[in-house]
Amino acid sequence: MSHNTFGHLFRVTTWGESHGEAIGCVVDGCPPGLNLTPEMIQTFLDQRRPGTSRFVTQRQEPDRVKILSGVFEDDRTDGPVTTGTPISLMIENVDQRSKDYSDIRDRYRPGHADQTYDAKYGVRDYRGGGRSSARETAMRVAAGAVARQVLGADIEIRGAVVQIGPHKVDRANWDWAQTGNNPFWCPDATMAATWEAFLDETRKAGSSAGAVVEVRASGIPAGWGAPVYGKLDSELAGAMMSINAAKGVEIGAGFDAAAFSGEQNADEMRSGNDGIRFLSNHNGGVAGGISTGQDVIVRIAIKPTSSILSVTKSVTRDGAEVDVRTKGRHDPCVGIRAVPVAEAMLACVLADAKLRHRGQIGS
Amino acid sequence: MSHNTFGHLFRVTTWGESHGEAIGCVVDGCPPGLNLTPEMIQTFLDQRRPGTSRFVTQRQEPDRVKILSGVFEDDRTDGPVTTGTPISLMIENVDQRSKDYSDIRDRYRPGHADQTYDAKYGVRDYRGGGRSSARETAMRVAAGAVARQVLGADIEIRGAVVQIGPHKVDRANWDWAQTGNNPFWCPDATMAATWEAFLDETRKAGSSAGAVVEVRASGIPAGWGAPVYGKLDSELAGAMMSINAAKGVEIGAGFDAAAFSGEQNADEMRSGNDGIRFLSNHNGGVAGGISTGQDVIVRIAIKPTSSILSVTKSVTRDGAEVDVRTKGRHDPCVGIRAVPVAEAMLACVLADAKLRHRGQIGS
Amino acid sequence: MSHNTFGHLFRVTTWGESHGEAIGCVVDGCPPGLNLTPEMIQTFLDQRRPGTSRFVTQRQEPDRVKILSGVFEDDRTDGPVTTGTPISLMIENVDQRSKDYSDIRDRYRPGHADQTYDAKYGVRDYRGGGRSSARETAMRVAAGAVARQVLGADIEIRGAVVQIGPHKVDRANWDWAQTGNNPFWCPDATMAATWEAFLDETRKAGSSAGAVVEVRASGIPAGWGAPVYGKLDSELAGAMMSINAAKGVEIGAGFDAAAFSGEQNADEMRSGNDGIRFLSNHNGGVAGGISTGQDVIVRIAIKPTSSILSVTKSVTRDGAEVDVRTKGRHDPCVGIRAVPVAEAMLACVLADAKLRHRGQIGS
Amino acid sequence: MSHNTFGHLFRVTTWGESHGEAIGCVVDGCPPGLNLTPEMIQTFLDQRRPGTSRFVTQRQEPDRVKILSGVFEDDRTDGPVTTGTPISLMIENVDQRSKDYSDIRDRYRPGHADQTYDAKYGVRDYRGGGRSSARETAMRVAAGAVARQVLGADIEIRGAVVQIGPHKVDRANWDWAQTGNNPFWCPDATMAATWEAFLDETRKAGSSAGAVVEVRASGIPAGWGAPVYGKLDSELAGAMMSINAAKGVEIGAGFDAAAFSGEQNADEMRSGNDGIRFLSNHNGGVAGGISTGQDVIVRIAIKPTSSILSVTKSVTRDGAEVDVRTKGRHDPCVGIRAVPVAEAMLACVLADAKLRHRGQIGS
Repeated sequence: MSHNTFGHLFRVTTWGESHGEAIGCVVDGCPPGLNLTPEMIQTFLDQRRPGTSRFVTQRQEPDRVKILSGVFEDDRTDGPVTTGTPISLMIENVDQRSKDYSDIRDRYRPGHADQTYDAKYGVRDYRGGGRSSARETAMRVAAGAVARQVLGADIEIRGAVVQIGPHKVDRANWDWAQTGNNPFWCPDATMAATWEAFLDETRKAGSSAGAVVEVRASGIPAGWGAPVYGKLDSELAGAMMSINAAKGVEIGAGFDAAAFSGEQNADEMRSGNDGIRFLSNHNGGVAGGISTGQDVIVRIAIKPTSSILSVTKSVTRDGAEVDVRTKGRHDPCVGIRAVPVAEAMLACVLADAKLRHRGQIGS
Repeated sequence: MSHNTFGHLFRVTTWGESHGEAIGCVVDGCPPGLNLTPEMIQTFLDQRRPGTSRFVTQRQEPDRVKILSGVFEDDRTDGPVTTGTPISLMIENVDQRSKDYSDIRDRYRPGHADQTYDAKYGVRDYRGGGRSSARETAMRVAAGAVARQVLGADIEIRGAVVQIGPHKVDRANWDWAQTGNNPFWCPDATMAATWEAFLDETRKAGSSAGAVVEVRASGIPAGWGAPVYGKLDSELAGAMMSINAAKGVEIGAGFDAAAFSGEQNADEMRSGNDGIRFLSNHNGGVAGGISTGQDVIVRIAIKPTSSILSVTKSVTRDGAEVDVRTKGRHDPCVGIRAVPVAEAMLACVLADAKLRHRGQIGS
Repeated sequence: MSHNTFGHLFRVTTWGESHGEAIGCVVDGCPPGLNLTPEMIQTFLDQRRPGTSRFVTQRQEPDRVKILSGVFEDDRTDGPVTTGTPISLMIENVDQRSKDYSDIRDRYRPGHADQTYDAKYGVRDYRGGGRSSARETAMRVAAGAVARQVLGADIEIRGAVVQIGPHKVDRANWDWAQTGNNPFWCPDATMAATWEAFLDETRKAGSSAGAVVEVRASGIPAGWGAPVYGKLDSELAGAMMSINAAKGVEIGAGFDAAAFSGEQNADEMRSGNDGIRFLSNHNGGVAGGISTGQDVIVRIAIKPTSSILSVTKSVTRDGAEVDVRTKGRHDPCVGIRAVPVAEAMLACVLADAKLRHRGQIGS
Repeated sequence: MSHNTFGHLFRVTTWGESHGEAIGCVVDGCPPGLNLTPEMIQTFLDQRRPGTSRFVTQRQEPDRVKILSGVFEDDRTDGPVTTGTPISLMIENVDQRSKDYSDIRDRYRPGHADQTYDAKYGVRDYRGGGRSSARETAMRVAAGAVARQVLGADIEIRGAVVQIGPHKVDRANWDWAQTGNNPFWCPDATMAATWEAFLDETRKAGSSAGAVVEVRASGIPAGWGAPVYGKLDSELAGAMMSINAAKGVEIGAGFDAAAFSGEQNADEMRSGNDGIRFLSNHNGGVAGGISTGQDVIVRIAIKPTSSILSVTKSVTRDGAEVDVRTKGRHDPCVGIRAVPVAEAMLACVLADAKLRHRGQIGS
């Protein structure tokens, strides 16, 4: 019942504003005895870090993470290990330029949370969006790195961008290795070139573009998740929709399934060497809220960055009509940096499901 | 952390299997002093009741609800009113035909939760899907009726089917009044005729069809919801994805927003007579997880009913390869009866948001 | 965050008023495959049942429990077994005499929750105390019977009354077998005779007496529980204080420890055949919130029944000064029937701790 | 379901070990618009700070608190105010002497959590007790300062020590002003002198003493709290028992009520100028789990500090029998520094109850 915490047994609480002194999180419920170092977390933070290409925000943040608690090393442990106590992680903010935001102190930027935070709280830290900034997602990525340790080496979590603006990848060209060869996490080399041209145009126009992100987990055993309101896909939908700018979530065939017949949609089963072998995966690895043993597949619709250079109609806190034009340093397509965030959320939900499964089955 | 409970302050716990003695729920956290009678709840249950047209399951269940606790009437109260204590609701099962299911005792039906429940629990009530049956959703509808009392008369919740199979409604023809004039909750009279023909064909072929459901709430004030992991849209996504056969959820423009530019997606604001007037609602009434004051709009993708007459390849509990052909009485398109369920989930999430808002603002 | 639910992974939600149609509970999170029959639950309900001796209320309630969901039997299971889905239990109320309560419709009985429920809710079911009646504890006992199945045969839970009014048992006379030989759960045969005389006098005077109840669990392995706010003793204290009329809880030496020196209080350790052997158990089986492997020992102070025949000064809802004299059928010492309730709470907290432990340790 | 978080709507998550780099907490759910500065928090931390008299540990920790998030100041706000977002508080550890603890790396200190943490986690940070150290309570005090802002100026929270070792205060001598005039929070000047002599002797002998702490809140309106498992006294019992070394909790008359008759225990009511006037407060301000409007009164039994200079029998991790003698800097009576901690817990539970009350009553 906390709006800054997610998870049940593997729980992450984040704190911090875009232009405050620091941001951080507390990961509670991590089992003991798992190896954990700042470097393990840094690897993932570096994937999300701003300023790495011209297609993301130019804010310069090294995003160096510190582990303040929950890990212990002595000559009896094999490197620093988790102790089962809360893991406190912190990143100091470095490149805040709060004065960029004095213009919007009293103006609501369309599409941002300015109007809604003010309606709710009557007071807000307007610098860079304050708490509503996507800067918070750095801590999701950090927590996701811990979650990956809980999941272990047998479970692989990967992500890609599958659509930017109107341009969708061709699944026939899918090559996971390509996602590291371009600044878009694009698994289709041909499409990556298209996106580069499209986003250069978008960026120069001071505009922004939406995107669809796809994340997958392989190696999940059958049986994780739970019925009814604790469904694995329900947890995933809630987690993914909590990512800034997310407006839709689908599992497996998702909205395409609406147009299918029952025959087309059936994931038929045969006997495999290693248990059940499915002939398709329209269910995206989840049936009745519980993992089937196939890959878990989730897609997320990300709206275009709300901060654009074009003038948009808006109002002030006091209701006066004004024009708003957002300066500052912004991502032309926030969907790109959403990939490591969505991967992290998937890791966290699955780590939680792993721990819950043990508590559900008992003895 | 309970897989049969949803909500935080307005909490609903459901119980019961498809072919057990009864199904029921406990609604906890309902404020005192609200008028509540079985008839108020029955109205909504009747909308979801099986057997009402040839396009839904022919199982005959009167679905008469009893209120067992939480309501009190004496000459000081104006009719039966809630007391703030848990409201226990129960419906007795009448038309169970368990023997229909002896065939599937050891066979996994593709697309159903048979394999996954068995993987998780090692034991399952296979009669009609047991706990994984959509019969559970009757109690969601009952709880939703209570939630509507919490929301009050100023908030209106409505739903429609906007796609069946490949056939989508034409939004230019949208007329809410039409949703009561056909057995499909179709707001487009022309499309209703198309669906009738399409579903008659589907039904006769022993096949099934997917659908997209849309639900809307109007009258929600700005400021409900919460940041980060308690986002109103995150709560909605989790709630809607927990509905049987749901594979996707979107808010406002949803997946369409991925193809938009920042300019197209901006919900510009002008000053209205009664506060802010928005020029569009791509955000679906939620920004930064908090309500904007516009209509809250949610769409849900429902996969085709997994129970079909066609033979599908499957396996037994013991791993032997078998053919499965699902007899029993099934909905050719479960998306239809999902409308009152999705409305109920929307009502419950909003009732919870209303109560949480008060607890968040304090003083 | 639900005031009618307790537990985290093993969760119990109760519902119902003293003079409503029925009372019930939903037990969620019970692992699958455990044998469970109504008879197993009835055994414990019969220990708490009213009307069994002249020292408890004369209300006649057979308290027959029904299992409405969550249990399944076919020729593959060894008798009825839990399926991992919610277990719904219900007891119909039989001997309500609501008219006994018309006198207190507008009068607040001192010590009861009449004034406080009215202050909170502005409406209340005054018949027999409504939701605040100890009748609710029947469902705790029922849930406790399920919890015992989760704990298994190696864990024994027992209870006794150790003080009634000013009369405390002599621990030198402690004999568990005696608790079944008198209507007081008294482990000291000599004291049982004293209590009989004392309570006969109390009862005839229309007065009531307080008591101290002690419950113990043996067979708990070291390592259950959790640090800081999830401490096993913290969970126990919360659970026990939620029992009607409880005003104090202590673990192990409890308040006596305040007078001890560090040397007196130390539970020294030696090496035993089967792990650590403790030389004393002042900690009551819990250190740092985690079980030590010794017996878990809890005592609860129960205030005298607030319903007495003597005239007490009070006020009406409208603030008028009145005299109150409580008729109806009441327990001269509610502490007696609190024994099976306290045992049940201990069983529930431990069953939850058992499941949590698995989820905390992970992998 | 987090063992490092407490509260429901006003939630506190703490992190950090005794000898780690820092300790901290995240306060989530604090309403917006409340004035909050580091100085407001520091006042309470200084009351708990080590090294302030010879009767508490000589560890030198300035305990300077930093506010890292959740507070904002601009020319529109009247000083720094809360924004409704999570408040992150941190204290850097300064005077760690980890080498003091090398002796106990493999030895279990009787009464400490050494054996139990090891049984649970298989790994532990043994330096100063790691996470099980009472150093964690500094963050409870910090969070309590925030809770006091939520409660507002009309609610007063005070605490005292009422027993040290076998010596109890004389309630006839009670004078709140005295609690600031001696290093024991003793409200009875005569008893303070007795305690000084007693504790000097204890300290010189390398021994330790238990204590009873009493905390009170006045100004609480009738109606806070909730029935059944959300009882205000149940929440208080759980919160207080989570304090290090607590072994018992009682509300109002507590264990004394067990010896009372119903007549003695009744809190009779008369009509007062300002609503109901109670003639006594044996219930300690709570009836049926809901506040009556009287002072809320809680007492906590604190066991003697487990760290003593005397040799005690113990075992190593490997089960070898050893003698343990605890060096390091310890409180001869931890009950003294428990006063600000117990006050803080009372403030936090009440702040949470205040917010919950609004969410429970609704509309």
